[in-house]
Order: sequence, then structure tokens, then C-alpha cells
Amino acid sequence: MEYRKIKDEDEIRDGALEDVEKSFLLSVPDSSLSSGGETKIDIHKTKAKWKRKSVVTLALTILTSSQAILIVWSKRAGKYEYSVTTANFMVETLKCAISLMALGRIWKKDGVNEDNRLTTTLDEVIVYPIPAVLYLVKNLLQYYIFAYVDAPGYQILKNFNIISTGVLYRIILKKRLSEIQWAAFVLLTAGCTTAQLNSNSDRVLQTPFQGWVMAIVMALLSGFAGVYTEAIIKKRPSRNINVQNFWLYIFGMCFNCVAMLVQDFDAVMNKGFFHGYSFITVLMIFNHALSGIAVSMVMKYADNIVKVYSTSVAMLLTAVVSVFLFGFQLSLAFFLGTVVVSVAIYLHSVGKMQR
Amino acid sequence: MEYRKIKDEDEIRDGALEDVEKSFLLSVPDSSLSSGGETKIDIHKTKAKWKRKSVVTLALTILTSSQAILIVWSKRAGKYEYSVTTANFMVETLKCAISLMALGRIWKKDGVNEDNRLTTTLDEVIVYPIPAVLYLVKNLLQYYIFAYVDAPGYQILKNFNIISTGVLYRIILKKRLSEIQWAAFVLLTAGCTTAQLNSNSDRVLQTPFQGWVMAIVMALLSGFAGVYTEAIIKKRPSRNINVQNFWLYIFGMCFNCVAMLVQDFDAVMNKGFFHGYSFITVLMIFNHALSGIAVSMVMKYADNIVKVYSTSVAMLLTAVVSVFLFGFQLSLAFFLGTVVVSVAIYLHSVGKMQR
Repeated sequence: MEYRKIKDEDEIRDGALEDVEKSFLLSVPDSSLSSGGETKIDIHKTKAKWKRKSVVTLALTILTSSQAILIVWSKRAGKYEYSVTTANFMVETLKCAISLMALGRIWKKDGVNEDNRLTTTLDEVIVYPIPAVLYLVKNLLQYYIFAYVDAPGYQILKNFNIISTGVLYRIILKKRLSEIQWAAFVLLTAGCTTAQLNSNSDRVLQTPFQGWVMAIVMALLSGFAGVYTEAIIKKRPSRNINVQNFWLYIFGMCFNCVAMLVQDFDAVMNKGFFHGYSFITVLMIFNHALSGIAVSMVMKYADNIVKVYSTSVAMLLTAVVSVFLFGFQLSLAFFLGTVVVSVAIYLHSVGKMQR
Repeated sequence: MEYRKIKDEDEIRDGALEDVEKSFLLSVPDSSLSSGGETKIDIHKTKAKWKRKSVVTLALTILTSSQAILIVWSKRAGKYEYSVTTANFMVETLKCAISLMALGRIWKKDGVNEDNRLTTTLDEVIVYPIPAVLYLVKNLLQYYIFAYVDAPGYQILKNFNIISTGVLYRIILKKRLSEIQWAAFVLLTAGCTTAQLNSNSDRVLQTPFQGWVMAIVMALLSGFAGVYTEAIIKKRPSRNINVQNFWLYIFGMCFNCVAMLVQDFDAVMNKGFFHGYSFITVLMIFNHALSGIAVSMVMKYADNIVKVYSTSVAMLLTAVVSVFLFGFQLSLAFFLGTVVVSVAIYLHSVGKMQR
């Protein structure tokens, strides 16, 4: 695990995609690239880092797309019978438990040290509730936006998130994207929206001014929360991700506990905490918990840009899988959107070379 | 006009967009760029060439979009009362006449020389009927494809033309596009198709296999005709474009004369050649003639790639103008397609720098 310590800020800012190129380089026999032993070690470190980034990105993609599939499945099975707030609380608790379990294994192997100890300082932990607060405000706004937009329209407006993440990533983390990568980001937004088009999509153009403003504010809040989480996690590169996750999720537990008490106190008291839980509910809780951890890992080892690409691909993947599982029909718009998203991914990786 | 002679093959292969960059360079005061008088002349030549390319490209864009608007206008005015074959014949005749008039002016100014004389050799003229034959075959196929696809579906399948033009441009003219320019071309195709999507577009996915094959064959024929015309015109760079046009259009007149005699002999004999002509018919004939000449000019001074971008922009322009003229409603798909096409144009120009 010692390679984590030597990575510097510059290396961190490179996303997973750049390393794909490095991995091509690595397929050339070592002797032609490295003469000294030191270079060889560097290559192994780069390889290990690339592998880790790829694994977390792939995990996020698969978990996010199976998440959407579970939602469709649970909708088919009928309305939610359980309290959503208890499920959210369970997700945060499970994430905390998984982080602690992972820490336990690391302590056993490496012993407790400065980087993996659970105790923290106020200076480190004080910023951790901020993303949780941002998400809370965004979720509250979500109730009000439906006065102006219907649910499918909201799905389309949510694609503003992609652009807002890119803009805030640039401003807050001061990381540069090349011009081609910006073009790719615009294409990703257009492609995702195109893939979601259906015969009722044009209604979104009738959204009143307040609706557009709220959609943009929500996109900025969501983008800011994501970028801020990355800033928190990357601020201490050598700090163990499981400790960072533990503290993030502790605040998530607190906020969700409050929401549960405010919204569903009576239901929980009368019918019990786990009332209405089914096999699929448990599956969804596990899936959400693992997706959340995958997001943190992507923030640590890659960045928000990789996260956005990964979840966009997951959205397309969900539709394709739904064809086989639920007999969904793919539209021409979906094919066109997929083509545009694919070109965007290609351009993002090409654009990296020229930065 | 002497600058035409010194341009070499390499200069010809650069499209209009590359020269936009050159024109930026030119805005720097001359003294900083050129010390000798020769370089100064070079810059003036480049400037003149860039201006000419821009003018023909702009003319093609405006003429193509007004062409579509005239079609909508004439459809609103009622069904065609005239024989379409006589109108096509008139278009070719008008193009011939305009070319001859332009030649007359040039002869008066520069005198008759090797490059602008009308007389030709069999070696020069033998290839000129080939594009006309290709278009004829394509137009014949057009009657058969409607057995498999409806008219709006055919409009969507016609976007294969963009890709086929790019592929044949690469193969036949052996001109290279950079990887980013290929990506831009894929985006142009996807963007144009997206902009044309409507609630019935998904029917095109039910097209039977024969329909797909015919659509691809037609796209190849149309792409081949365009690329072959460019090859003919560029084969003799110093030859006057009006002479080349004259010979192209003479064959166009012949083919359309045959079509007129076969299809509308009785109607023309009984009701007269100009029966059913209205003011709008005359406008459309003039528009088609000028568009045809603009296409030739783009082939001479730019290339098929510029032509494809130009006509794609014209398609989008038509829709926007139709909002004001005919109260058309723009769809969300149209906005998304326009975004993708705009990014494609940007990437095409960026991609040129890296070739």
C-alpha cells in the first residue's frame, strides 16, 4: 500500500482514461522503456494505479446501471410499502459498517498508523457535513420543482448536472480540461439528453422561467456537492479512503436520522422500522450502499469527470439491459444519443493527450 | 486571375475552414509576418483564396436553405401543376446560360486562352457524363425505396450520405481526414439525424433489410457522384470553372431532355412546355440553377467535406427561418441536433490543425 504516499497532486489530477494510454505503452516490452530499476518500479506503480482506477470506475458503472434496473423491477412489483427514509438511513449505516470492516482488515495487516487511524481532528472533519447539507437542500428543492416540470421533464433537465459538474470542477478544483474535452462534455450532455428523448419530451420546452432557474440551481448544488466531496477526499491524499468514507457516512447517518424522525416517526413507531421490507428492498439497500462507496473511490482515485462519464454510460447500459429483462424498445433517439456519447468518450481521451 | 495557376495540389486539398485560421494570422500587421515583398504577395493570394472559398460556401448555404423554404412555400401554395421534368431541363439550361455569360465576360477581359477556351478534347470531356449517370441511377432507385420506407423515414436514411461522402472522399480522392475530423463527421451525421427526429421517426427502425441495403447503395451512389465531380473539376486546376460547368451541364441538359421526352411527352405536346408555371416555379428554377453552380464552385475551391457541412447548416437554418415564416415549432431534438452539429463544425476546424 506504500505507493499511495508517493503520488503527488499532478498525478492525482489525471483521470482513469489517461492511464489507458499508459497501459498501451506498458504492453511494449519493459526493456525498451526502462533501463534502470527505478523506472521499472514507476511503471509498476502506474500500472497498479491504472488498474485501481479502472476497477472502481467499472464498479461504479455496473452498480449504477443495476441500481436503475432494481428501481424498474421494484416499480413493476408494486408501490413502495416501506418508509423510504428508513431505507436511506440503512444505506448510510451499511456504508459505515462496510468502511469499518475494510479498516479492520487494514489494521490487522498494516497496523494502525497516522493515515488509517479512525480518530480525527476538528480541522479535518469540519468540512465533511457540507456535501450532506448541499444534497439535503437539493432534495428539498426537488419537491418544489415538480410544480413547474413533470417527472420525465425533470429527468431531462437533470442533464444540466453534467455541464455544472464540468464548470465547477474547473472553478473549484482549478483543474483544466482541454478545448476538445470541453467539446466532449457538451456532447456528453447532448448525447445523454438525446438518448432519453421520447414523444412527450418537447413538453419540457414549455417549462416556465422559474422551472429553468430551479433546474439550474439544483444542477449547481448537485455539481458543487460532488466537486466539494472530491476536494475533501483529495485534500489528504495519503489518508485512507475508508476513514474518509466513515466520517462522510457518519454525517449522512445523522442527516437521514433527522429526516426519518421528521417524516416517518409515526409509521416507524406503529408498524416497526423494517415494515414493508422485501427481498428487493434489501437488494436495493445493498446496491445503493456499494454504489455510494464506489462514488467515493472514484473521487479518490479518479475524479468527478470520470464519475460523470461512468454514470452516463451506466444510463445507456441500463436501457440496453432493460431490452432483455423487461422487453423495452430502444428508440432511434437512443441509438443517436449512444453514438454521440461514445464519440464524447473517445474525444475526452484524445483531448487528454493534448492538454 | 493569374493566382489560379500557381496553386498546387497541396493547397487545393485544404478546405475553407483551414483558411479561417490563416485569416486570423492575417489580422496581425503584415510587417511582423513578412519582410520580403514575395511573402506579402503570398499573403494576399491566400487572403483572396480564403475569401473566394468563404463566399462560395456561404452562397451554397444560403441557396440550399432558401431552396428548402421555396419547396415548403410551393407545397403550401398547392400541388405542382407543371411538369417536373421541364423544370429540371430549364434548370440545366439556365446553368449552361449563366456559365456562358460568365465566360463571355472573362473572354472580354482576359481574352481567350488555353484555360478558358470552350473547345475541349475527348480526353477531358469523356468523364463528364459519369456523375449525371450516377444521379440518374440514384433517382431511379428512389422510386423503389418507397416500397420499403415512407418519405420521412427516407429523409432520415438520407443522412447516410454524409458518412458515404466522407468514406469515398478518403478512398477516391486519397485525401486524409484526422481522427478528430472523422469523429466530427460521425457527429455531423448523428446531429443532423437528431435534428430531424419527430414522433414517427422510430418507424424507420422497422425498415426491412432490403430497405437498408437500398438506402446504403443510394448513399454510396450519391457520395460517389459528388466525390467524382470534385475529382473531375480538380483534375485540371487551372481550367476555368465556367468551362468545366458548361460541359457538366450540357450532359445534364441531354439526360433531362431524355427524361422529359419519356415521362412528359404528351403533357408538353398538348398543354405546352411552360404549362402550369407560376412565379414561384420560376423562382425555384433560378434557385436550383444558382445552387447547382454554387456546388460546383465549392467543389473547385473547397471540397466535398465543406459541401456536406454547408448543406447540413443549411438544413438547420431552414428550420429556424421556417419558425418565423411558417410558424414552425422547433423541437427539443432539433436543439440537441444543432448543438451536436455545432460541436462537429468546431471539431472539424480544430482537427485540421493536427493533421
